Amino acid sequence: MNQDYIVPNNWSIIEEGFEAERVKSSESLFSIGNGAMGQRANFEEKYSGDTFQGSYIAGVYYPDKTKVGWWKNGYPQYFAKVLNAPNWIGINVEINGENIDLASCEIKKFRRELNMKEGWYNRTFNAILKNGIEIKVNTTRFLSLDIDELGAIKYEVTPINSDAKVAFKPYLDTGIENEDTNWEEKFWETLEVKHDENSAFIMARTLKTKFSVATYMQNSILVNTISANVKPVEVQKEATTISFTYEIAASKGQTVAIEKLGGYTVSTNHKEEELIRAAKNVLDQGNKLGFDTLLKQQKEAWAKIWEMSDITIEGDVKAQQGIRFNIFQLNQTYLGKDSRLNIGPKGFTGEKYGGSTYWDTEAYCIPFYMATKDQNVARSLLEYRYNQLDKAIENAENNLGFKNGAALYPMVTMNGEECHNEWEITFEEIHRNGAIAFAIFNYYRFTGDYSYIPKKGLEVLIGIARFWHQRATFSSDKDKYVILGVTGPNEYENNVNNNWYTNYIAKWCIDYAYEQIEKVKSEYSNDYSRIMSKVNLDEPELNEWKKVADNMYFPYSEKHDVFLQQDNFLDKELIKVADLDKSQRPINQKWSWDRILRSPYIKQADTLQGFYFFEDHFTKEQLERHFDFYEPFTVHESSLSPCVHSIQAAVLGRMEQAYTFYLRTSRLDLDDYNKEVHEGLHITSMAGTWMSIVEGFGGMRVKNDILHFEPRIPNQWEGYSFKINFRNQILKVEVSQKETKFSQEGTTAIKVSVFGKEILVEPNHLVTV
Amino acid sequence: MNQDYIVPNNWSIIEEGFEAERVKSSESLFSIGNGAMGQRANFEEKYSGDTFQGSYIAGVYYPDKTKVGWWKNGYPQYFAKVLNAPNWIGINVEINGENIDLASCEIKKFRRELNMKEGWYNRTFNAILKNGIEIKVNTTRFLSLDIDELGAIKYEVTPINSDAKVAFKPYLDTGIENEDTNWEEKFWETLEVKHDENSAFIMARTLKTKFSVATYMQNSILVNTISANVKPVEVQKEATTISFTYEIAASKGQTVAIEKLGGYTVSTNHKEEELIRAAKNVLDQGNKLGFDTLLKQQKEAWAKIWEMSDITIEGDVKAQQGIRFNIFQLNQTYLGKDSRLNIGPKGFTGEKYGGSTYWDTEAYCIPFYMATKDQNVARSLLEYRYNQLDKAIENAENNLGFKNGAALYPMVTMNGEECHNEWEITFEEIHRNGAIAFAIFNYYRFTGDYSYIPKKGLEVLIGIARFWHQRATFSSDKDKYVILGVTGPNEYENNVNNNWYTNYIAKWCIDYAYEQIEKVKSEYSNDYSRIMSKVNLDEPELNEWKKVADNMYFPYSEKHDVFLQQDNFLDKELIKVADLDKSQRPINQKWSWDRILRSPYIKQADTLQGFYFFEDHFTKEQLERHFDFYEPFTVHESSLSPCVHSIQAAVLGRMEQAYTFYLRTSRLDLDDYNKEVHEGLHITSMAGTWMSIVEGFGGMRVKNDILHFEPRIPNQWEGYSFKINFRNQILKVEVSQKETKFSQEGTTAIKVSVFGKEILVEPNHLVTV
Repeated sequence: MNQDYIVPNNWSIIEEGFEAERVKSSESLFSIGNGAMGQRANFEEKYSGDTFQGSYIAGVYYPDKTKVGWWKNGYPQYFAKVLNAPNWIGINVEINGENIDLASCEIKKFRRELNMKEGWYNRTFNAILKNGIEIKVNTTRFLSLDIDELGAIKYEVTPINSDAKVAFKPYLDTGIENEDTNWEEKFWETLEVKHDENSAFIMARTLKTKFSVATYMQNSILVNTISANVKPVEVQKEATTISFTYEIAASKGQTVAIEKLGGYTVSTNHKEEELIRAAKNVLDQGNKLGFDTLLKQQKEAWAKIWEMSDITIEGDVKAQQGIRFNIFQLNQTYLGKDSRLNIGPKGFTGEKYGGSTYWDTEAYCIPFYMATKDQNVARSLLEYRYNQLDKAIENAENNLGFKNGAALYPMVTMNGEECHNEWEITFEEIHRNGAIAFAIFNYYRFTGDYSYIPKKGLEVLIGIARFWHQRATFSSDKDKYVILGVTGPNEYENNVNNNWYTNYIAKWCIDYAYEQIEKVKSEYSNDYSRIMSKVNLDEPELNEWKKVADNMYFPYSEKHDVFLQQDNFLDKELIKVADLDKSQRPINQKWSWDRILRSPYIKQADTLQGFYFFEDHFTKEQLERHFDFYEPFTVHESSLSPCVHSIQAAVLGRMEQAYTFYLRTSRLDLDDYNKEVHEGLHITSMAGTWMSIVEGFGGMRVKNDILHFEPRIPNQWEGYSFKINFRNQILKVEVSQKETKFSQEGTTAIKVSVFGKEILVEPNHLVTV
Repeated sequence: MNQDYIVPNNWSIIEEGFEAERVKSSESLFSIGNGAMGQRANFEEKYSGDTFQGSYIAGVYYPDKTKVGWWKNGYPQYFAKVLNAPNWIGINVEINGENIDLASCEIKKFRRELNMKEGWYNRTFNAILKNGIEIKVNTTRFLSLDIDELGAIKYEVTPINSDAKVAFKPYLDTGIENEDTNWEEKFWETLEVKHDENSAFIMARTLKTKFSVATYMQNSILVNTISANVKPVEVQKEATTISFTYEIAASKGQTVAIEKLGGYTVSTNHKEEELIRAAKNVLDQGNKLGFDTLLKQQKEAWAKIWEMSDITIEGDVKAQQGIRFNIFQLNQTYLGKDSRLNIGPKGFTGEKYGGSTYWDTEAYCIPFYMATKDQNVARSLLEYRYNQLDKAIENAENNLGFKNGAALYPMVTMNGEECHNEWEITFEEIHRNGAIAFAIFNYYRFTGDYSYIPKKGLEVLIGIARFWHQRATFSSDKDKYVILGVTGPNEYENNVNNNWYTNYIAKWCIDYAYEQIEKVKSEYSNDYSRIMSKVNLDEPELNEWKKVADNMYFPYSEKHDVFLQQDNFLDKELIKVADLDKSQRPINQKWSWDRILRSPYIKQADTLQGFYFFEDHFTKEQLERHFDFYEPFTVHESSLSPCVHSIQAAVLGRMEQAYTFYLRTSRLDLDDYNKEVHEGLHITSMAGTWMSIVEGFGGMRVKNDILHFEPRIPNQWEGYSFKINFRNQILKVEVSQKETKFSQEGTTAIKVSVFGKEILVEPNHLVTV
């Protein structure tokens, strides 16, 4: 934990003071991105201390050869990884021939700010170099939302105590390696290094995947904020780098600056032979607008995002900062413009976890994007899976021995192929298939857009239902269908039998697919014929499905009147987390794996995840009983755990607990709860934070095409507000300790239900409840 | 399978004809060893085809940095590996300047023979080189049993169709890499390359472990079998190699030869600074005796081994060849001279499986060594574990969180440290601890030597009992102690609860330790005090142990009246192996791991392993019921499976089945059942083959200090015989279809029980039953 490091502020993330051992953590926290590219908050200038250099381009990945201790049949040969991309931000700066290097000079007034409202990152400091010269540095950087192949840097230097010769050495570098490469292989080959007077281009291509990328920069020098038309005195061109040198004599107190524009054009968006031309276009555009106009447009673009997605919290700056940080990072990672992309668990902030897409997208992220963006964004995320259906079928057939179009979606993926290799997860954490089906249901429930199902969704539902039908086996001992050998959402159990959550969602998937087949049959007969002839599905197979769904086994304890997380859960030594010695926490760092497995401790919601998805299937008493049974054994060592628990605590009216869980989810990275923020941020769980306010405190649900709310507010807050884009109408909800106000700016009234009572929210009319 | 490749022969392994794709398999099958070193049957001369070069020195290992896909707490940092050692056998041979290279010349009359009776390996062939010269080669090699740092080669060349200049280029090479290195690291550093006129020495040292080894050779040239006093015309010395060149003009039909002596002296047996002096001593000894005398002594030494350990089978050459191959390889691998050594699963024939010691030693090998060697050999094997007790305690405490002297022996080890890294095995296949305790019981039962227990064994038993006591947990649901999250002997199940075998042996270990404590207390009070003060064990702890042992849970099916392999075994789809499509076998090559895990298929005896160890605890009807229940689900994909099943089939009088299992175990490698013999031989399962004759067909048991027999004979055999060293008396048992004869050459009578009837076998007096 790192509770007092980030300065509390409503709109900015602020660090004051330089601590070398925090550099990597801050590189993660101050990361910037624009959906198409992103980067850790590495220093532009040389830094000889401990750093994790990271730049990433959305959708550009590399299949790293799998590394395992002991090979198991079915493992994928390759593990597609987020790829550390060429560096275009570098600007070495020499003062009278000495490099500015924060690892070797005296530093004063070091400050970083990530301004979330306006979408820029700034760093200022004074440094006294070994040569005795004190300089002031002020550097601002952003990645344009409007022109998403473009980033901009303004790097200002002011000598404080004497005149000085300032040399700016902006460079490009394509000699990049991934920190997490399995075999220390190179992922990039550099094809061509070119330059004009003030601009440079490097063409590089990923090995194997053959993504071509042009990395580029254009530089201009300013003296006292005025363009100085300084030409490079030297151009240094090497195999994988190119560097310009600009020299300026700065008088004491005079500010000299370099503005550097840069970015990537990628073969996924342009013809390969046009990448450099496209790059020049981008630079021309940027140049024409200039740094200050670009920055102004950036503020406007972010204002638009905030207009829709902001959540305000009054009376609790840390909580406010936390939720905005989460919303900001989600928007930096994924904006829904490109259906080939998805939401990586670390976004553009690190390499860990390899691929970009987990079940997190469907289980946690889609509700956020549905409610804060146009519904096409969520639909894009659904289509991503539809587009990968063939690979999910291939995976199930070729690697795992399923047949007849059964689909198992990968645990982790970039392009639809599995890129995880731990048998207990890769082969057994199959519940992920359930979340993918659930997201289709959830999308229709929220948006009312049924058209997705006959067009695309139904094929996904059929592939998934087939998988569950084949994966279940009949136990003559139990006279029921069982699902043996799985890992549930609680990854602190492996290879268990009859994980309740998995069995429940498996049954639900079959039932739901069955119902949708019936509906499409009667209402979309053309689509029905097309799909049925494609997937070759007949009545007898459907009956077999139903037999499995209707006779699914669910482990249950009569004594406790709860469903059991899995068979034999009650054989464990049921010592509550509260009774566990604190020295043993977190257990994933303190205990060997076998000890974790045989313990009752739960990493994240498992049975309770089912109660979250299928709330309507159970009474509040059942929820309470299960919450009281399982939460005391839950260690919340997954970033995805506190949000679901916060929502359920709120539903149960346990506001103190809900608030504690909320803080933990919203400030997980800012306060570095798990001591790992240096590896990158937990992007996908940030959507869970949004849910814990909107669905937890706000109690928002959609039932029968109507928004329902049961607003609750923690004692610590004066008020909070959020907006929901419900079927193209924007509803604003403001909750205070006394009352809740609903308003909207649209043209037709919205009916909402508040604590079960229907009210009508008219346009431009405040309703107070 | 490779059923007709090795020529059936009572005493030799013979290969006729050269097939390039069999070179690696034959390199394994024709391996030679003398307990101190061993080597694959690589060609002496250059071979540019596919080959797996392997030389190994007993006890010389390297801790390879662990490689895993996903790190789990508790994994060892290093994986100690059998180390591929310097090559001293190499002799390149040039005929008129052209290398003999079987990959590039025409080959006729290629033949190999591994003469098991006399302990040598011979290879003959005619080759027509590209230069048109036909030569005959005859090369014989052996590793001396008497001087176990010495090996000898005689390599004869006869030009057939013309005179020829023959150049012999014997060399040493320390630039060796392991084929299975995790990170392609070098394991050896070469320190010094030295030579005299006809001899050479390379000092090399393993990195990290710092084993120093002198590798050496001495060469002499013969013409027409007479020493020719030819001096090298060239000595080529490089960083890690040294090579001599001897040139001889051979007339057509004239045989020229090189005799090369070589081997290793190792810092485990000599002071480092004396390694070369020791090497010179060895060479002097060898030189004085000469190749022919060394070979004569070799035959005598093997005759002595066979005198005691031979098993004859009449009327079935393949069965005879099989059992002798097994006995021969066991003796090549381990002779019991050095208590620091143990029996590696691949002996000196390959690198796979890393370390040298598995539970195979206790469960399978000790009975063979007890009955065919002096009892000190088995005692040495027990002491090996005693000497590693501290490390077993350390492993349990530091890696796995146990306390108070609980010991978990490693799954695989070289020096007592765990060197396996697959959580489901490393952390969970804990039944290995049981076999180690059982071997102590078994040793005493067979030898009557109780002294080992108060001296050393009891401390091991206490460490193991403590482990089981702590590892079991109380299930209030079952009101019994349970053992959760284990892998039983059947490695096709992982992380199961209440594996019957594990629970049973755990309870037995505690009970047995408890009894031995009582016995030592009353009969060896000095040892008792010494041990108790060392291990700090008191009554209350003992009572806690007993509580666990007395209330252990055993999964059981009333319906089938069998113990269940583990909880919920009956939930599986119980389709018998016989009903499985043949295309699906072997399942470990055809199925993904999850599919194997949720199937009912059993890799090797699991519940039945318990019935084998604890035969007396159960009735024959119980055995039959369990055999009939489990064998149909057993795929025998472990080399350790058929032998136990052969024994039990024999006990049940199912001789056809017993015979089939016997053939499979005894010819596993010769007929390459599992298509993997190129990786090396299955050494430890070879002891199981011995058991399947002696304990299976012979029905040998020790009960109340008396040897019991229930001889049975397969229809396919005319007769078989074996000897048993029972408490320093050598009993010979000869079984034919009609009768069984017992005889002995000692001085006092031996009482044996045959089918429950006691008979007295007088010295030099044949008893026929």
